[in-house]
Amino acid sequence: MTVSDRLAGGVGGPEHLRPLLATALDALGKGAVQRDGPLPAGGPDAVTRAVADVGEALPSGGVGEQQALSELAEVFTASAVDPADPACAAHLHAPPLAVAVAADLVASTLNSSLDSWDQGPSGTVVESSVLRALAELVGYHPDAATGSITSGGTESNLTGLLLAREHALGDAAGVAPAASGMRERGPMRVFCSAEAHFSVARAAGVLGIGEDSVIGVPVDDRHRMDPAALESSIVEAREAGEVPIAVVATAGTTDLGVIDPLVGIADVAERTGVWLHVDAAYGGGALFSERLTPLLRGVRRADSVALDLHKLGWQPVAAGVLLTRDRALFEPLERRVAYLNTEDDEVAGYRGLLGRSLRTTRRPDAFKIAVTLRALGRDGLGELVDRCHDLARHAASHVSAHPRLELYRDPVLTTVVFRYLPEHGDPDGRNAKLRRRLLDSGRAVVGRTEFGDAVWLKLTVLNPRATEADIEALLADVDAAGQKEKATP
Amino acid sequence: MTVSDRLAGGVGGPEHLRPLLATALDALGKGAVQRDGPLPAGGPDAVTRAVADVGEALPSGGVGEQQALSELAEVFTASAVDPADPACAAHLHAPPLAVAVAADLVASTLNSSLDSWDQGPSGTVVESSVLRALAELVGYHPDAATGSITSGGTESNLTGLLLAREHALGDAAGVAPAASGMRERGPMRVFCSAEAHFSVARAAGVLGIGEDSVIGVPVDDRHRMDPAALESSIVEAREAGEVPIAVVATAGTTDLGVIDPLVGIADVAERTGVWLHVDAAYGGGALFSERLTPLLRGVRRADSVALDLHKLGWQPVAAGVLLTRDRALFEPLERRVAYLNTEDDEVAGYRGLLGRSLRTTRRPDAFKIAVTLRALGRDGLGELVDRCHDLARHAASHVSAHPRLELYRDPVLTTVVFRYLPEHGDPDGRNAKLRRRLLDSGRAVVGRTEFGDAVWLKLTVLNPRATEADIEALLADVDAAGQKEKATP
Repeated sequence: MTVSDRLAGGVGGPEHLRPLLATALDALGKGAVQRDGPLPAGGPDAVTRAVADVGEALPSGGVGEQQALSELAEVFTASAVDPADPACAAHLHAPPLAVAVAADLVASTLNSSLDSWDQGPSGTVVESSVLRALAELVGYHPDAATGSITSGGTESNLTGLLLAREHALGDAAGVAPAASGMRERGPMRVFCSAEAHFSVARAAGVLGIGEDSVIGVPVDDRHRMDPAALESSIVEAREAGEVPIAVVATAGTTDLGVIDPLVGIADVAERTGVWLHVDAAYGGGALFSERLTPLLRGVRRADSVALDLHKLGWQPVAAGVLLTRDRALFEPLERRVAYLNTEDDEVAGYRGLLGRSLRTTRRPDAFKIAVTLRALGRDGLGELVDRCHDLARHAASHVSAHPRLELYRDPVLTTVVFRYLPEHGDPDGRNAKLRRRLLDSGRAVVGRTEFGDAVWLKLTVLNPRATEADIEALLADVDAAGQKEKATP
Repeated sequence: MTVSDRLAGGVGGPEHLRPLLATALDALGKGAVQRDGPLPAGGPDAVTRAVADVGEALPSGGVGEQQALSELAEVFTASAVDPADPACAAHLHAPPLAVAVAADLVASTLNSSLDSWDQGPSGTVVESSVLRALAELVGYHPDAATGSITSGGTESNLTGLLLAREHALGDAAGVAPAASGMRERGPMRVFCSAEAHFSVARAAGVLGIGEDSVIGVPVDDRHRMDPAALESSIVEAREAGEVPIAVVATAGTTDLGVIDPLVGIADVAERTGVWLHVDAAYGGGALFSERLTPLLRGVRRADSVALDLHKLGWQPVAAGVLLTRDRALFEPLERRVAYLNTEDDEVAGYRGLLGRSLRTTRRPDAFKIAVTLRALGRDGLGELVDRCHDLARHAASHVSAHPRLELYRDPVLTTVVFRYLPEHGDPDGRNAKLRRRLLDSGRAVVGRTEFGDAVWLKLTVLNPRATEADIEALLADVDAAGQKEKATP
């Protein structure tokens, strides 16, 4: 055979990987130097040209491993947005730890899959062990709880709402609803705060509940869901013959890091008998920090919880988590498939994790998490969380003291929402444009969002290596870009 | 800061990664030697003990990067099932190419995400370029087609059926159904062959169509969907007031590699005006091979197609693909989100790929595919496909000539379904047990499935480095295990 069948696995695999990894590291280094900042200058067109210049995507004859890798990896790196640069602070887009990236290579090499034991024995055990530790962190009883590693908060929310739907409709009709369709019942309802992540509505759409069946419960002046308003909404829905499927509480909204009052919401969910799902994709990271853990009081009372360790956990994507307090709640996902998990094999101990996910083939993303948890420990991860929290607070006080910057409100977790205040003219257009100016020049990646139709900027601080001086320099860049930008006519 | 904030990215990243990658390669090598075969001996209990012996999953204080990585990676490798071993031939579980694994490290390091331009400029362009090449391979017009890289065939089938649902119900009612719920219409129906992958029924359940709303169309004696029977089913459903959502044709069933008659099915779909989705997760790889491409004639007429390059494409998971012939068909997934994709940013050219996926955060799995496609070219990949096809045919003729082995039928792609024939006693129990005996001894990973309630064994040949002698040795092991196994009482 030719050079093209050099496999990563087996006893000889490391010798196939070694020269290619050297090439990859070389390209990562060269690309970073070439980029010289958080992103390439020149905007979208420059990136499109750079990739096109490499050549045909699928030639008839290949150019060989070394050439393809070195050329594409260098362009890919030079034209990336690198979250490890302190001037990259727009999104919940974490710079991954080197140890997690190296661990993930091991998972890629062995290419295990968790849908049957005989595609991933060690992956199956490692995922279970990681989930047990995370269940304990959330406050669940680790012997009762279960879950799975997902592609992110969106899949966790979708799967959590699917389990809630099956639970609610199964209760109502005594049959498995996925099998029977859902046409004979009243309209379904999902309750969340008006500031919950858009993936909740999206999940409702996917699941056939309907996006407009999501009730946006009013929030207080700190953007937190009002438990009393939640309770009235649920009662009203029931009186109207509707079927409440789930309450989705948010622990850490994307923009403001707001955490809904989980204890009050859990009380309502308990009284009304509605499934409680907590979307802690962002805020779940607070559980590593002694200082911030109290913010999530009550999360242990949820039926299901979404976490995301590619946010405050510094994993390469994907490292989402879905947990349920009781393994029985996962039962609607169980499947018996002749080629994957027959009963006699399971009785003999050969059990995979097919019933833990909507996916079939599923890589052990748990492995990099397992290595990170043991390498840093809870305290090590907590330090990183605290560091980002401190930096966000530093940014907020710097903004507050600045003559041309306005703080939207004090940070809860690690985001800072603020804007540039022009002396005259439209602040919305100015902020939108100054952000694009920073992107276009390759200087900084700052976030943007809207409150009450007004445009605001946002720093999402997830880089524990950034310094106070980095943050101040970033805000000075925002200010300078704002001053340069002409007022919108 | 401490050692724990060593990030993979940035100019200094390669120097953080280098010693950790050396540790990872060392552990991969040692673990493979320790495993000494395709999987560890001793069955599930041995694996559980080995992982538990490493120690606490989330200690308060970390043990450090090097220790955590070297210990866990060695155990993980030693207790894995390695698809690069020629005696691992159970599932559509490919041994990944070293070049793809190395490329994937670059993606993990930069941690790009495709849901907004400013988290992954190069990822966005690379995915678009890979999809364009794959669309051409399928026979779509590359300027019209679009798609996305998914976590696998299951997500591709789910997303394809979601688009089909929105298309069918949107047509019927003139509104976006995800927004309005689906209660006012007749029961929905999905049509596929009785041998389609279980993920089709699962998707129907998730989407609120109902698992029992999937109509299993009869197959011919070669297990292929009968287009005439399909047409009558659709007509009958319409007459009964039901709403046909989609026809799902399979190009490569998991067990037999059967490819439905795509031209005849496309004719029916066209005449009846029903969405045609082709699940080519397995068989799509045939498009790299000149010899096998004709098997997929008609695939270009599908509205949507699922491919999986972690099968016949030798990628580390995940490398699923969903394509639609027209980009307008993807519109139901478009979203406008204030913090991700405002209109003025898009007008200025800053366009991410949020609207191409049910996920929000999404890593550029396209990058490793891009490097592989350029490194090997279509011909290089075609050679690997042909090699596996040849090996499967060799296995089939060896089985046919064997006194104690029975072939179920000739291979279509790269699977061989067969069984051990005991002189007396229950063949089902004997085959199930001999397979577990091979697993338990760490000698071989052979597949298992059922036809007409009978247990059959299966080789799924995806290792292009295997030799004819390897295949013969594997079949000799099956025979020996069958002879050793006592007849079931």
